[in-house]
Amino acid sequence: MNNGERNRWARAGLSRLMEPNDLTALALVAVAGAEEAFRLVTGHTGPAPAAEQQAVAELLADGSASKAEHRLDAGLQRWRPRAADCAPARDLETMRRLGGGLLVPEDPGWPEQFDALGLSAPLCLWWRGRTGPESLPGFRDLMAVVGSRDATEYGRHVTAELAASVVASGVTVVSGGAYGIDARAHETALSVGSRDLGASGPATPGAPDECLAPRTIAVMAGGLDRFYPAGNEELLRRVAADGALIAEVAPGTAPTRWRFLQRNRLIAALCAATVVVEARWRSGALTTARRAAEMGREVGAVPGSVFSANSAGCHRLLREGSAVAVTDAAEALELLGESRAHAEQATSGAAAREHASTRPHDGLDIQDLLLLDALPVRTASTPDKLATVAGLGIGAVLGGLSRLEDRGLARRVGQGWQRGGN
Amino acid sequence: MNNGERNRWARAGLSRLMEPNDLTALALVAVAGAEEAFRLVTGHTGPAPAAEQQAVAELLADGSASKAEHRLDAGLQRWRPRAADCAPARDLETMRRLGGGLLVPEDPGWPEQFDALGLSAPLCLWWRGRTGPESLPGFRDLMAVVGSRDATEYGRHVTAELAASVVASGVTVVSGGAYGIDARAHETALSVGSRDLGASGPATPGAPDECLAPRTIAVMAGGLDRFYPAGNEELLRRVAADGALIAEVAPGTAPTRWRFLQRNRLIAALCAATVVVEARWRSGALTTARRAAEMGREVGAVPGSVFSANSAGCHRLLREGSAVAVTDAAEALELLGESRAHAEQATSGAAAREHASTRPHDGLDIQDLLLLDALPVRTASTPDKLATVAGLGIGAVLGGLSRLEDRGLARRVGQGWQRGGN
Repeated sequence: MNNGERNRWARAGLSRLMEPNDLTALALVAVAGAEEAFRLVTGHTGPAPAAEQQAVAELLADGSASKAEHRLDAGLQRWRPRAADCAPARDLETMRRLGGGLLVPEDPGWPEQFDALGLSAPLCLWWRGRTGPESLPGFRDLMAVVGSRDATEYGRHVTAELAASVVASGVTVVSGGAYGIDARAHETALSVGSRDLGASGPATPGAPDECLAPRTIAVMAGGLDRFYPAGNEELLRRVAADGALIAEVAPGTAPTRWRFLQRNRLIAALCAATVVVEARWRSGALTTARRAAEMGREVGAVPGSVFSANSAGCHRLLREGSAVAVTDAAEALELLGESRAHAEQATSGAAAREHASTRPHDGLDIQDLLLLDALPVRTASTPDKLATVAGLGIGAVLGGLSRLEDRGLARRVGQGWQRGGN
Repeated sequence: MNNGERNRWARAGLSRLMEPNDLTALALVAVAGAEEAFRLVTGHTGPAPAAEQQAVAELLADGSASKAEHRLDAGLQRWRPRAADCAPARDLETMRRLGGGLLVPEDPGWPEQFDALGLSAPLCLWWRGRTGPESLPGFRDLMAVVGSRDATEYGRHVTAELAASVVASGVTVVSGGAYGIDARAHETALSVGSRDLGASGPATPGAPDECLAPRTIAVMAGGLDRFYPAGNEELLRRVAADGALIAEVAPGTAPTRWRFLQRNRLIAALCAATVVVEARWRSGALTTARRAAEMGREVGAVPGSVFSANSAGCHRLLREGSAVAVTDAAEALELLGESRAHAEQATSGAAAREHASTRPHDGLDIQDLLLLDALPVRTASTPDKLATVAGLGIGAVLGGLSRLEDRGLARRVGQGWQRGGN
């Protein structure tokens, strides 16, 4: 086994022994390396070497040595009971059999954007999908679409519209595989045929369909050997077959509240933009959004009825300034950068259509607007009378009438003028 | 006629001769005074004195003297044709008969907040209402509630909830008297009985009901001798009887597009906060909101369905940062200042209720949360096994179990533990 393999093996093992985002664990790996950390947890039962205790303490910015000893010892107490169940070879083989594997930070396909997590970056990523992790899309091509489990019809509808347009522009939809908004996001993304994928899409020209980046990625809180929640099994099986599943925990690990919470930080870090479609006042989706905002990622929230408890979390994000309002796919894509937004302009919704429409009196100056208001609709009026009614000089009236006539807003009737048909 | 009366008379006359926010007119009044401006427009037909032309030009920051001459002359051309119809005594008498009058900047009740408009401040305010302009509420007690004419059921519902709570906290609801949101705002405000008015309300303790500040004020684009639009006649008659109507134009003046636009600046300047309930992508309500924001007033926008064209303008304000999201009356009142928001906390909606509710596991530290996740629901587990499953040391497990037991989250079953009933 070479160095790279030993590191992979050690990280696979540690991902079973240590909870996600266990900072003491991550500090130990940062200080001593994955292999030494793995040896320390699994190899013997004595206390950790003093030098490592000190270095871990310093990394955790935790001044006192006695406290540090306590922390690393407490960590060993947490990790060691699980060592009996630790079998990296078995876990790696399980994932290989399921058409997956392990990605470690030293691999070329490792998402560099996890650096934004600092010490909280994951030890490794277990994956499962149609293609290997080398086809993970670039940072700017990843958009998280997340929200409530108990989504409303409104939320599901918005999610479907967003996800379909976003995928059609070549962006991968990332979510958490849960019921509700997550499920609808994955489902819709899978339903976008490769023929719908735009020119800016993930296809390399001439490359076979198999090289396409996944349309959707589910970031899971538990091990990838099972599909959780059970009601999404069929959907997640399709995500695994056509998109990708990733997790930082080893196969066989059950999803827990803590792991869901920590999974959210991975979604936030992985994607350049996160859009919350529906969320209650307290919702895991808000954690994801806030962590994303803290890391300087773009965050959008979809507004909804003020009477819907499922939009209360979105409005909360808007009010606290963690998110901008996103009302259609074009605005979601804007979060990924201007260029992409322009490419997608055609798919924009009602707002853009209304925006584009102009009214006959747009661009008139104040005097012509006053004149237009003074023009009678049914009878006709003389320029002198118009001057009085509009409060304009006679020169302004005569010039204005000709400009309004050009736009079809005024028309001559004998010696007088009336409102035009436009 | 004393000085004050002559000034009142002149402003009454000028408000008929000059369009709202005619900057040349306002500059002339600023330079020469209302009486001299009135004399100049109505008294003779020659050009304006050179000194005044120069001063008006300077006030308008318009360097060249020839241009200035042109502007003031153009102004005289606009204003003089209307002089024949100008009869301040008649207009003042009309309004007196209708139970109203004229407020000028020199009067004690003049809203000082109009200073924020600079040169664009109105020449005078015609009013009509149950009480005189001396009972106009203070700046911080005025909230504009505005929006689309073609309001949806959603918009009407939100307006009614907002207006009722806002008035019940002693704040006056200001709007434009139009169909849709405006009408619903006035209507609801009038329906709040004086017994519903809170302690922070406008009533002076012991004072008779007649001294109450108006519950609602309609700022009109046309003269106050008629009610426009016709379909709101009955409502506006009630606003006049129980609240107040104000306008900067003289009685007999028809509302026009220009006057509607300028009326919006008065609403924006008058109120400490403006809330847009519903607005299309292009809507007069957006003008009001943007002018309010420019003047440093607080602006709120009510979110709604992204599929509703009537919420597109509100979402536009949120996206451009001109407004904050407002989802209930408490958030609207927050715009008027913290103290008022706290007084009103009890009326807050779903968000606050969800906010206040706590969950049994709130406040648990990470280790106890991990332990809670590890506790089986139906069977029982030993502390040793819990240590392995939760990834915790045995000490942390024993301490944690007792803390969870205190909260009803864990309970002892023989030698083992399981999830508590809470």
